[in-house]
Amino acid sequence: MSGGDGGESTAAADPTYTASVVGGSGFTGGELLRLLYQHPEFSVVQATSRSKERKTVGHVHPNLRAMDLRFTSPAELEPVDVLFAATPHGVSMERIDAFREAADTVVDLSADFRLDSEAEYDEWYDGHSRPDLLAESEYALPELNRGNLPGADLIASGGCNATAAILGLKPLFDAEILAGDEQVVVDVKVGSSEGGAGGGDASSHPERSGIVRPYAPTGHRHEAEIEAFLGTSVSFTAHAVDMTRGASATCHVYPESPVSTGDLWGAYRDAYAEEPFMRTVAGGGGVYRYPEPKAVAGTNYGEVGFELDPGNRRVVVFSAIDNMMKGSAGQAVHAANLALGLDETAGLEFAGLHPVGAP
Amino acid sequence: MSGGDGGESTAAADPTYTASVVGGSGFTGGELLRLLYQHPEFSVVQATSRSKERKTVGHVHPNLRAMDLRFTSPAELEPVDVLFAATPHGVSMERIDAFREAADTVVDLSADFRLDSEAEYDEWYDGHSRPDLLAESEYALPELNRGNLPGADLIASGGCNATAAILGLKPLFDAEILAGDEQVVVDVKVGSSEGGAGGGDASSHPERSGIVRPYAPTGHRHEAEIEAFLGTSVSFTAHAVDMTRGASATCHVYPESPVSTGDLWGAYRDAYAEEPFMRTVAGGGGVYRYPEPKAVAGTNYGEVGFELDPGNRRVVVFSAIDNMMKGSAGQAVHAANLALGLDETAGLEFAGLHPVGAP
Amino acid sequence: MSGGDGGESTAAADPTYTASVVGGSGFTGGELLRLLYQHPEFSVVQATSRSKERKTVGHVHPNLRAMDLRFTSPAELEPVDVLFAATPHGVSMERIDAFREAADTVVDLSADFRLDSEAEYDEWYDGHSRPDLLAESEYALPELNRGNLPGADLIASGGCNATAAILGLKPLFDAEILAGDEQVVVDVKVGSSEGGAGGGDASSHPERSGIVRPYAPTGHRHEAEIEAFLGTSVSFTAHAVDMTRGASATCHVYPESPVSTGDLWGAYRDAYAEEPFMRTVAGGGGVYRYPEPKAVAGTNYGEVGFELDPGNRRVVVFSAIDNMMKGSAGQAVHAANLALGLDETAGLEFAGLHPVGAP
Amino acid sequence: MSGGDGGESTAAADPTYTASVVGGSGFTGGELLRLLYQHPEFSVVQATSRSKERKTVGHVHPNLRAMDLRFTSPAELEPVDVLFAATPHGVSMERIDAFREAADTVVDLSADFRLDSEAEYDEWYDGHSRPDLLAESEYALPELNRGNLPGADLIASGGCNATAAILGLKPLFDAEILAGDEQVVVDVKVGSSEGGAGGGDASSHPERSGIVRPYAPTGHRHEAEIEAFLGTSVSFTAHAVDMTRGASATCHVYPESPVSTGDLWGAYRDAYAEEPFMRTVAGGGGVYRYPEPKAVAGTNYGEVGFELDPGNRRVVVFSAIDNMMKGSAGQAVHAANLALGLDETAGLEFAGLHPVGAP
Repeated sequence: MSGGDGGESTAAADPTYTASVVGGSGFTGGELLRLLYQHPEFSVVQATSRSKERKTVGHVHPNLRAMDLRFTSPAELEPVDVLFAATPHGVSMERIDAFREAADTVVDLSADFRLDSEAEYDEWYDGHSRPDLLAESEYALPELNRGNLPGADLIASGGCNATAAILGLKPLFDAEILAGDEQVVVDVKVGSSEGGAGGGDASSHPERSGIVRPYAPTGHRHEAEIEAFLGTSVSFTAHAVDMTRGASATCHVYPESPVSTGDLWGAYRDAYAEEPFMRTVAGGGGVYRYPEPKAVAGTNYGEVGFELDPGNRRVVVFSAIDNMMKGSAGQAVHAANLALGLDETAGLEFAGLHPVGAP
Repeated sequence: MSGGDGGESTAAADPTYTASVVGGSGFTGGELLRLLYQHPEFSVVQATSRSKERKTVGHVHPNLRAMDLRFTSPAELEPVDVLFAATPHGVSMERIDAFREAADTVVDLSADFRLDSEAEYDEWYDGHSRPDLLAESEYALPELNRGNLPGADLIASGGCNATAAILGLKPLFDAEILAGDEQVVVDVKVGSSEGGAGGGDASSHPERSGIVRPYAPTGHRHEAEIEAFLGTSVSFTAHAVDMTRGASATCHVYPESPVSTGDLWGAYRDAYAEEPFMRTVAGGGGVYRYPEPKAVAGTNYGEVGFELDPGNRRVVVFSAIDNMMKGSAGQAVHAANLALGLDETAGLEFAGLHPVGAP
Repeated sequence: MSGGDGGESTAAADPTYTASVVGGSGFTGGELLRLLYQHPEFSVVQATSRSKERKTVGHVHPNLRAMDLRFTSPAELEPVDVLFAATPHGVSMERIDAFREAADTVVDLSADFRLDSEAEYDEWYDGHSRPDLLAESEYALPELNRGNLPGADLIASGGCNATAAILGLKPLFDAEILAGDEQVVVDVKVGSSEGGAGGGDASSHPERSGIVRPYAPTGHRHEAEIEAFLGTSVSFTAHAVDMTRGASATCHVYPESPVSTGDLWGAYRDAYAEEPFMRTVAGGGGVYRYPEPKAVAGTNYGEVGFELDPGNRRVVVFSAIDNMMKGSAGQAVHAANLALGLDETAGLEFAGLHPVGAP
Repeated sequence: MSGGDGGESTAAADPTYTASVVGGSGFTGGELLRLLYQHPEFSVVQATSRSKERKTVGHVHPNLRAMDLRFTSPAELEPVDVLFAATPHGVSMERIDAFREAADTVVDLSADFRLDSEAEYDEWYDGHSRPDLLAESEYALPELNRGNLPGADLIASGGCNATAAILGLKPLFDAEILAGDEQVVVDVKVGSSEGGAGGGDASSHPERSGIVRPYAPTGHRHEAEIEAFLGTSVSFTAHAVDMTRGASATCHVYPESPVSTGDLWGAYRDAYAEEPFMRTVAGGGGVYRYPEPKAVAGTNYGEVGFELDPGNRRVVVFSAIDNMMKGSAGQAVHAANLALGLDETAGLEFAGLHPVGAP
C-alpha cells in the first residue's frame, strides 16, 4: 500500500518495489514500517507479528495510525521484492529459506548473518544452524563497505553499538593513526529502546529512569562485529542512560606516533566528506560542540568528533547515532537503497528536531 | 536556497516560492527553518537573528548543520514571497510595515494580530500600536477557519495552548452538545519549549526536570484566543511538565442535555473526518488509548479524544499536539500552504516516531 | 532488628516496638521498610514476599543494602506489635484474621478497609469478603481525622490520589467556602511508582517516559474515598506524567458566594497552621510559587496552594504530595505513630532534596 | 537555630556547635544547610548570599521552607565554630582570612585549597593568591586520609568527579594490582547539578534534557586532584547525562600481572570493609548489579564495583556517588564530623529512596 496522507504528496510516481516487514510489532519493525510507508520507492504489502496478529499497525505504533494495514501471521509470507526481518536473534537463521523464497532481496536486522565464519560466530553466540550462509551474506555498514551492496540479495544490517564504534574509529585506522595493536577503550551509552519492546523489571519506568547503569560491562557481543570489521580488539563497555533513542560511543585511543589536530581533521575529512549521512563535529562554539545522540534523533545521520589530549598522548573520539535509525532500521533501508540502485538517501532525508527532549 | 541533501530527492521540481524567517534563532524560528528547508515548494533565502548574526543556522540548530545559510540582521530584509515572523510578542506590530514591504504574504507567529479588535487586545495585553490591522489579519487555525486563508496576505498563526483547547472543544459546540453558557475547565500540560530559548532559573534543567509546576494558574493570555474563537468563556490553567515538546489539554465540560458516546463520536467525526491532520483516539486497546503529545511529537498532527462520565454528567475531552508544530511552526506552514493554494500537507507529512522519549 | 549504621546514632535508646511488613518487595513495602529501619521507635523483625523469598531486602531495594534481613514467606507471620500490610487490593481482607492474630495493631495500605460500608464498597469494587470489619476499621488521613487514631488497632491508610485531593479541598468545605453541591473538578498528575513494581508494556521506559497520558479518565476508585470523606461528589481524572514519585492535584471549584484571597488564606491557615507536615504555598516569588511534587519528594510533607480567578468566579487549588510517602508509606507510619502515642513526626523528619530531578 | 520540626525528635540534646554557610543560595550551599539543619550537633546561625540577601532560605530551597532563617550579606560574618564555604572557585582564597577570623574551623568546598603546592595549582588554574596555605590545608576524602582530619582547622573538601574516580581506583593501587605506570581511562557521567544554579543556554531544560554530551573532553581540572592523590596520571573525560544528581565513573585499567575476581574482591574488602559509607556491588542478581548513582541519590554513600575482562586483560571499575553529597556537601560534613571528633555518620544517615526517578 502507498503511504496515504503522507506519501502522496512526496512520491513523484507510484512506488517501484513491494516490501514486507517480518517482526513488525517490535520497535525496530515499527521504525522500518514508518520508513517504508513514507519511502517514495517502496510500498508495504505485509507486516507480520506473532503477538499482534490482526491488530492494526497503528494499534501498536501510534505514529502510524493512518496506515491501513493489519499484522498477519509470520507463517504465511507474501511474495515481495524486499523482505526486512526484524526478528530476535536466532529466528532469521531458522527461517531464512522461507524469507528468500518470498523475496528477491532479504535484509536481516538481527546478528544472525553479520559475522563471516562459523568459528567467529561460535566464539560469541551458541551454534549457527546455517553456517553455509555466513560467507554469502553481506554485512551492511555503507560507510564501511558500500561497494559490496549493489545487487546483494542477503544483507546483514550492522548492529547499533558496533556501528557507533566503527564510525568513530575507522577513519583513524584508514589514516594509519592507529595500527591495530593499541588498546582501544569503547565506552558506550545507550537508550532504552535498545532493550526492545517488552523488557522486564529493569526496563520499567521507575527502575529505568534517571539511570547510569552498567550492563554487559564486558564481553558484549557487538565486540565481535567491531573486531571483525575493524580488524582490532576493543575493550567494550555499555551503559544504559536516560534516553529512549540513541547510542553514544566515546573511544579512548593512544596512537604510537604523535598526532596533531590537523591530522585528525584530515582523517575524518577523507573518510566522510562525501558521505551523505556523516557529519564531523569537533569543538567550535554554541551548545552542541561534539557529537550528541539528541542532535541526530529520529534521523539516519551519524556524528563523529574528537579531541586531542596531548598530556596523555590520547585521542578521545566521540560518535553518536540514533540506534533505531543509523543503528538499525535506517541502516537497513540505506542498504536496501544501495542494493537496488536507488538514490541512497531516498526515504531517509528527515533532518531531525531541535529542541528535542530525551529523544 | 534549496534543501540540499534533504530536498533533492523529494522535490519533483524547483521550489516555487522564496521565504524568509525573521527571528530564526529561537526554537520556533528553527522549526520553521527545518520545515521550509525540506518543503518542496519553498526555498529559504534569509533567516534573521539579532543575537546570532553571522553564525550558521546549524550553529544554533544542530539538526540543520547541512543547511548552507547564516543568520543576518533583521534590519535588512530581503524581498521574498512569504515572510514568517517568529519574534517575541510585540515585535511584529512595530515592524509590520517593513515585513509587508518585503513580502507579499506575512505569516506572524506571535500573538500580535490574533485578536480581532483593539478592545479585546487591551483586555489581555498592553496597548497595540497598529490596531488598524487587527480586523484585516486572518487568524489561522485551519480546522476552524480554512475558508478564510486562500489569498490572505497577513496571517496570525494560532497559539499553542489555544489550538489544543479549541481543537478539543470546537466539535462539541458545532454539534450543539455545548451551548456556550456552561462552565468549561481547560487544564493544560506543556513542555519546556513553550518557554522559548533562553529562559531563567526556572527553566534550568535542575529546577525544570521532573516537575508538575502550575504557571499562570489563571488569566493566561491564550484564554483570550479561546474565548474569541470559541465564543465562550473558559477556566484555563496551565502546568509545566517534564517534556520538551507537547501540549496536552484536558477539558472538563458538563452538557445540559444527556449525551451518549455515540453522540460524541458523531461530533468528532463530523468535525475531523476530512481533516488531514486530525485523529480521534478514544479508548480501544493497547498502550495509546487517548491523545498523547508523544504520539504526535515532531508532527503537525493533532489528536483529540473523550470519555463520558455519566455519574457526574461530565464529558472529559483530551487533546494533544506538538506545541512547536501544530501549535506554531507547523500551523504557520499549513496556513501558508493554504494561502498560496498549495497542497495543504506539503512539507508536513512527517509521521512521527515510536518509541520516542520525552519528545 | 535495629537500624545498623543508620539507627545507632539517632536512636537515643532501643526501639520500643517490633514491626513487620507483609508485601515488602513492592515499592510501598520497600518504602515502609526504609522508614521503619530508620525509625527510632521501631525495629523490623520480618518482611515477607512471595516472589523474593530468601532474597535480602537490599537485593530488591538497593538503598537498603545495609539492612540485614531476608524476605520470608507470608504464610508464617511472626508476632509483632505492629504489622504493616502493603499487599495488592483484595489480599488484606482475605488474610486479615492472620494479620490480627500476629499483631496488636494492623495498618493496611490497600483500599480494602478504607470505605465504611459494604454498600459503598460494592459501588466501586467487586464484593468484600469481610464487610463486618468496614465499620470497625479507622481511615487514616491524620489531617482529616487524627482524633480517631490513638489506640486504633485496624487502620486503613488513605490512598495517594484521594489524599492529595482531600488535603487541597477540605479547608474550603470547613470554611464553608464550598457547600458540597458545586461541581468540583479534580485533575491529577501522577508518577510511575503508582503503578507499582512490575507493570506491563505501558510501564516500560520507552513507552512511559515523557508522557502526559490519561488513565482511568473517569470512574477512578479513589473518587469513592474522596466522596466518602469529603461528603461531596467530584469529577476526577488522572494523568500519568514523567516522574517516578509524586501526585499533584489541581482542583477547579466555583464557590457560590464571592470569595477573596484573604478568605482563602484564612481557610488554609485554620486547617493547617498547627499541622507538622502541611505547608501552604500560594504565589510569592522565586521558582517554587505553588505546590510541586518535587518540592516534597521523599518526604511526608504535603503542599497546598490556590489562586483566585475572579473572571470565572473560580478558585484553583493545587496540592502536591509524594505518593509513596504522604500518599502511602509515610501516611501509614504517621498513623502508627499516632495510634501508639508516639511523637507523630518520629521517623518522618526528612526534609527532602533541592535540587532533585524527576523525583 | 536548631532544626525546628526536623531536629527536635532526633537530637538527644541541644546542638553542640554553631555553624554558618557562606554561599548558601547555591545548590551546594543549600545541601549544606539541609544537612546542618537536621544534624544533631550543629545549629546554623548564618547563611550568606549576595544575590538573595534578605530572602528566606526556603524561598530558594523549597525543601527548607520550615527553616526560620534569612540570607545575609557575606560582608559581615558572624562568629561560629565551623564555617562552610560553598563559593565559586577563587572566592575562598581571597576571603580566607575573614573566614578564619570568624570560625575556628573552616571547611572549603571549592578547589582553592585542594592541591598541595603552588606549582601544582598553576598547572591547572590561574594563579593562587594564598599559596602559603596550600600546604597547611587538609584535603578531605575520608576514605583516603581520615587520619589527617581530627583537629584540622582548614579543610579542602574533595571534588565530586575526583572523589568518584579515587574511590573506584584507590583499592587497586593499595593492593598493588596497579603500579601507577599503566594507562587509566576514567569515563565519567554526571548530572546537571554539577553546573550549579544558574547556568546558561546549555543548561536550559530543552537543550539539557535527554543528553549524552561530552564536556571538557580532556584537561578537566579534577584530573589534577586525581593525579595528586592517587599518584598516577589518568585520562579523564566527562559527559553530561540526564539526571540532576549523581556522578558515575567507569575506569578502564590494564594490570600488568594476571588478576582474578578473588583478588579484586579482596582489594575492595581491604579498602572498604570498615568504611561506614562504602558499599561494593559487583554482579549478583536483581536489577541493581553494579554501582548506580540513583541507588545512592540523596545520600552520603558511595558504591564501587568491578568486572574482569580476561580477553582484554582489562579490569572495568564502576563508582557511583551523589555529587551533591559524597561529592561535596556530605563529604564536607563528614570531614567536619571527623575534625571535631563527632560520630562520623552524624547527620548523614539518610538511606536514600527506592524507586527514585532521575535523582
